[in-house]
Amino acid sequence: MTTSPETTARLQVTCPDKPGIVAAVTNFLYHHGVNITELDQHSSDAYGGKFFLRLEFQTPTLDVTGEALVRAFGEVVARPYQMDWRISFAALKPRMAVLVSKHDHALMELLWRYSRGELRVDIPVVISNHPDLREAVEGFGVRYEHVAIDASNHAAAEARMQELLQGQADFLVLARYMRILSPEFVARWPMKIINIHHSFLPAFAGADPYQQADDRGVKLIGATAHYVTAELDQGPIIEQDVGRVSHRHSVPDLRRLGRDLERQVLARAVRWHVEERVIVHGNKTVVFA
Amino acid sequence: MTTSPETTARLQVTCPDKPGIVAAVTNFLYHHGVNITELDQHSSDAYGGKFFLRLEFQTPTLDVTGEALVRAFGEVVARPYQMDWRISFAALKPRMAVLVSKHDHALMELLWRYSRGELRVDIPVVISNHPDLREAVEGFGVRYEHVAIDASNHAAAEARMQELLQGQADFLVLARYMRILSPEFVARWPMKIINIHHSFLPAFAGADPYQQADDRGVKLIGATAHYVTAELDQGPIIEQDVGRVSHRHSVPDLRRLGRDLERQVLARAVRWHVEERVIVHGNKTVVFA
Amino acid sequence: MTTSPETTARLQVTCPDKPGIVAAVTNFLYHHGVNITELDQHSSDAYGGKFFLRLEFQTPTLDVTGEALVRAFGEVVARPYQMDWRISFAALKPRMAVLVSKHDHALMELLWRYSRGELRVDIPVVISNHPDLREAVEGFGVRYEHVAIDASNHAAAEARMQELLQGQADFLVLARYMRILSPEFVARWPMKIINIHHSFLPAFAGADPYQQADDRGVKLIGATAHYVTAELDQGPIIEQDVGRVSHRHSVPDLRRLGRDLERQVLARAVRWHVEERVIVHGNKTVVFA
Amino acid sequence: MTTSPETTARLQVTCPDKPGIVAAVTNFLYHHGVNITELDQHSSDAYGGKFFLRLEFQTPTLDVTGEALVRAFGEVVARPYQMDWRISFAALKPRMAVLVSKHDHALMELLWRYSRGELRVDIPVVISNHPDLREAVEGFGVRYEHVAIDASNHAAAEARMQELLQGQADFLVLARYMRILSPEFVARWPMKIINIHHSFLPAFAGADPYQQADDRGVKLIGATAHYVTAELDQGPIIEQDVGRVSHRHSVPDLRRLGRDLERQVLARAVRWHVEERVIVHGNKTVVFA
Repeated sequence: MTTSPETTARLQVTCPDKPGIVAAVTNFLYHHGVNITELDQHSSDAYGGKFFLRLEFQTPTLDVTGEALVRAFGEVVARPYQMDWRISFAALKPRMAVLVSKHDHALMELLWRYSRGELRVDIPVVISNHPDLREAVEGFGVRYEHVAIDASNHAAAEARMQELLQGQADFLVLARYMRILSPEFVARWPMKIINIHHSFLPAFAGADPYQQADDRGVKLIGATAHYVTAELDQGPIIEQDVGRVSHRHSVPDLRRLGRDLERQVLARAVRWHVEERVIVHGNKTVVFA
Repeated sequence: MTTSPETTARLQVTCPDKPGIVAAVTNFLYHHGVNITELDQHSSDAYGGKFFLRLEFQTPTLDVTGEALVRAFGEVVARPYQMDWRISFAALKPRMAVLVSKHDHALMELLWRYSRGELRVDIPVVISNHPDLREAVEGFGVRYEHVAIDASNHAAAEARMQELLQGQADFLVLARYMRILSPEFVARWPMKIINIHHSFLPAFAGADPYQQADDRGVKLIGATAHYVTAELDQGPIIEQDVGRVSHRHSVPDLRRLGRDLERQVLARAVRWHVEERVIVHGNKTVVFA
Repeated sequence: MTTSPETTARLQVTCPDKPGIVAAVTNFLYHHGVNITELDQHSSDAYGGKFFLRLEFQTPTLDVTGEALVRAFGEVVARPYQMDWRISFAALKPRMAVLVSKHDHALMELLWRYSRGELRVDIPVVISNHPDLREAVEGFGVRYEHVAIDASNHAAAEARMQELLQGQADFLVLARYMRILSPEFVARWPMKIINIHHSFLPAFAGADPYQQADDRGVKLIGATAHYVTAELDQGPIIEQDVGRVSHRHSVPDLRRLGRDLERQVLARAVRWHVEERVIVHGNKTVVFA
Repeated sequence: MTTSPETTARLQVTCPDKPGIVAAVTNFLYHHGVNITELDQHSSDAYGGKFFLRLEFQTPTLDVTGEALVRAFGEVVARPYQMDWRISFAALKPRMAVLVSKHDHALMELLWRYSRGELRVDIPVVISNHPDLREAVEGFGVRYEHVAIDASNHAAAEARMQELLQGQADFLVLARYMRILSPEFVARWPMKIINIHHSFLPAFAGADPYQQADDRGVKLIGATAHYVTAELDQGPIIEQDVGRVSHRHSVPDLRRLGRDLERQVLARAVRWHVEERVIVHGNKTVVFA
C-alpha cells in the first residue's frame, strides 16, 4: 500500500443498525474527494442490532480542511443516524503514558517498538512506583517519574499521577503495573487504560495467575490485554493468546514463557488501539484488525 | 445473527480501483430494499490497484425479483465500473463432486459435515479410481462411481469422469485424489477444482511430502488447500495450517498427524468457497473469511 | 520405528524420588532381554519430590513370560522403591465404553479413528440417554444401548449403565454426555472416565460455555479433556487446545468451531490414555506425549 | 525445581543403539552420587538405529571432581558403547558471539534476555558489517566491532572476524547477518553457528523471503533457526514457527510480523543450544526441549 501516515485518517462509528448507513457514509466521503483504503463493518444482529463501522481513508485530494470535514460529517451523516463517532488524523500521534512497577519486559517491548517507529505514538512519561527502571527508560529519551505509592498515601500518589498525566496523555498502558487503581482514577480514563493481565481471562483473575495455573495443571498458559474498568480484571478484552506448557514447566518457567506472551499480546493490543481498530460495545470489543 | 439461508445472497466484485465504488454498490442495494449483513473490501494498492468486494445481504424485502436485481446491477453498477462480478443466492446450494482414491479421511470429513448440514452443498457424485470406499460413501446416501484409471486409459477415464460431472457439478474437490489430472480436464474447471496437498506449500511439492518433511527435519508439518491449475501444486492457495512435530515422530506418525491437518484445512477451504468468500487474483486469493 | 503392537509393553511408575531408580528399572529390564524404545521421566522436585517414569519396551526376546516379568518387577524393583506401578501389554487392547447424548461429533471422531485402526481399543458398548444415534453407531459394528435417564429414575438408570459396563469396559469416555454422573458412579471408575468439556477450563465451567464465552467477549475459545471426579469440571486436565474467534462469530459459530476443537482434544487425550502416557498426580497430570 | 546452575551438569550422548545403554549410564552416575533431574532419550529405530541421550544432573554430592567424573565416564561407559559424548557444567557459561548487519530486532532480543539473566551466556563481542548498532550494543556493556565487508575484501574481513572470535567464542549467532560466510569460515565452526532465516524453510530459501511469500500468496509466514553449513539455508533445523497472514498484509506488514517470529524462534533455538538440548544427526536435529 502506497499510503502515508501524513494523509491517513480514520473514522469509527457505532449506531443503531438500519439500511443505508454504509451508502450514506461512503457517498459523503466520495463527494469530498476522499479515497477509502480500508472498510470494516459489523452488525451485532441482522435486524435491530448495533452497527459498527471503521474506515481508513486517504486525504491528499480532500476538498475541504480536516476540521471542515469533521464538522460536515457530524451534521450531514452522524446526526440523522444517531452515531457515536470519531474521525482522527494519523498525522497527530496519540500520546501514550505507561505505568509500570518492577517487571520491565512489557515496557521494554513497547519502548523498543516506539524507538524504531513501529508504534506511532508519543510517550510523554513513564510513571513507576519503583525507581528501578529509570535508566532503562531514559536511555530511550523518555521521561521517567517515580511516584511511590503505598497504603498510607494512595490518594496522594494517584493525585500526583493524575497531575503528570492530565492534558499530557491520551491513553495509558499498564505494563505490569502491580498496584490497583482507584475507581475514581479509572473513571477519569474511561476505555483509555489498557492493562496486560498474565492469564487467559476469565481464568485466573487476581493475584499470581502463573501459580494458579500451575495449581490447576492447565496445559496452556495465556495473556490478556483489556481495557480497565472499576471491576478488577473484568474490563473489555482486546486481545489474548496462549502458549503450550506441560508438567515439565515449573512456576518460574511459566513466568518466563508468559513474559513472551504478555509482550506480544500487549504490543498487538496497543497497536490496534493506536490505529483506532478497537470499538468498545458494552463489556466486549469489536476489533477490526 | 438471525438470518436465513433462504433469503441470503452474496455479491463478489473485482474491478479497477477508483473512488466511489462502495458508495455506488451500497446505494444501489439500499434503494432495492436490501439489508447488508457483511461487507468486506480490499484494495491491492491505495492508488491504481485492483479492488475486491464481497457483500452478504438479506433479501426478504427486496423490491424486485432476484433475476431483475442481477440484471439491474449489471447495467447500473457493474458496467460503468468494469466489474467482474457475481451475485448468488444461498437458497440454491452449489453442487460439489468429490474425487478420491483410497485415503478416506478428507472425504469422510466432508461427508460428515455435509450429512449434519454444516456444509451447505448438494453432492451429485463421488468418483474414485478405486472401488474401496463405495460402502462408506453410499452409507451417506451419496452416489459412488468407480472409474478405473491407468496409463493406458487416461484419456478415456477422464472423458468418463467429465461425462459424469458435466452439468451435474458446480465445483470439484480432490480429497486426496492421487492421479494427476490432464491440463485439458483442468481447463474445463477453471478455479473450480479444490485440492488438498499434504504439505505447507511451496515446501514439499510433489510426491510423498511427509517423507520429504522427515528427510529435511522440519519442526512443523502442514497442509494446503488450493485451486488446481495446469501446473502441479502451483495454483492459488486458499488455506494452510501447520502442526508441531519433533524427532519423536516417524513418517507414519507424520501421516497420522497430517491427516488431521488435511481434514481441517480442506473443510475450511471448501466452506469458504461455498460461501463465496474466495476471490482469485492472479495466482493468489483474497479470502474474506 | 519398526515396532509391533504385539510385542510392545509399557511400564508406568510413580514413587518417592530418590537416586538410583532409573538405574534399577533399566538394569532389571536389560537383564530380562527387553529393548527399551521410549523412556520418559519427571521429578516434581529435584530433592524430595515425586518421581514419575514411563517406559515403552519391546518383548520379542523377553526371557520369561509377561506374567513372570510383572511378578518379578513387583518383588525386585517396585517394592524396595515403594512404587505405584503398572505394566501393560499393548497386545491386550483396552476396552473403551462411550457415553453420549445427542451431539454426535465427538463420538463420530472416536468411532472413525477406531474403525481405521488408529485408536487401538475395543468398544464393547456405546450408551446414550437418547435413541438418536443408534444407526450411526451400529453402522460401525458397535453395540448401542439406550438408557433413558431423568430426575425420577437417575439411580436406576445409573444402575443399568453400571450393569452394562461392569466387567466389560476398562475406561469410559463421555463424548458430550450431558447428564451429571452421581458421585457414587464416579467413585467406581476412579481416573477411568474421560470427559470433554467445551471450554478452556477453568474458564467457563458449568453449563453452556459457548454462551458464557460470547458474553465475556474472549478472543479464543477452547476445549478441555479431563478425568472425571466428584467435583464437576474440576478433575485432572489431560489436554486442552484453543482456536481464535472474533466479534464476527455468533454463539452458533462458536459451537461449530468448538466442535472441531472438542474432536481433536478428545482424540488426543484418549489416545494418550490408551497408550498409558498419562499419570495422575493429585489433581494434575503428567503426560508423556 | 530447586536446582542451581552452579551444580547443574549435562550429558549428551550419541551412539549405536543397543540394549543396556541407559542402565550403564544411570548406574555409573548413581554410583558417583549424582542426582538425575532430567533424562531424555531417542532411538532413530527400534532395532539397529542410532541412540541419543541427554541427562541433566545435580552434582552437590558428587564423590569426585568434575574432571575425574568426565575421565571416568569416558573410560567406563563411553568407550564400550562407542559414544560421541560431552559432559558440560552449567557453572561455565558458554561464550556467544553475535554477527549482525543493520536489522536490530533479533540482536536486541538476545541482548535483552542476556541482560536480565534469562540467557545464561557470556557475550565477548558483537561483530557487524555496519557501524549503525554500536551505541545500542554498547549500552548493554557489550563490545562492538565493526568489520566492513564487501566483494573486494571478503577474505580479509573474514580473517579479521576469525581473529576476533578465535579462542573468545564457543558459538556464533547470525542475528540477521546479511553476508554469506565462506565455506572455509563455516568449516571452522561446525554446528557452532546458528542462523535465523526469515521463512519457513525449505520454502523461500535465498533472498527476500517475505517478497517471495507475498508473490506465492501463502497464508502463513514463518521463521527458521538452523545450524549453518556450507550449503546456504540447508543446515540442520533447530526450531521453526509460523504466524497467520492474509491478503490484507503488504510486504512491509509481513516483514513487521516476521520480526516477531524471528525473535521468538531464534531466542528459543539459542536457549536450547546453550542448555545442550540439541543433538545434530546427519542433517537433522534431535531437540530435547
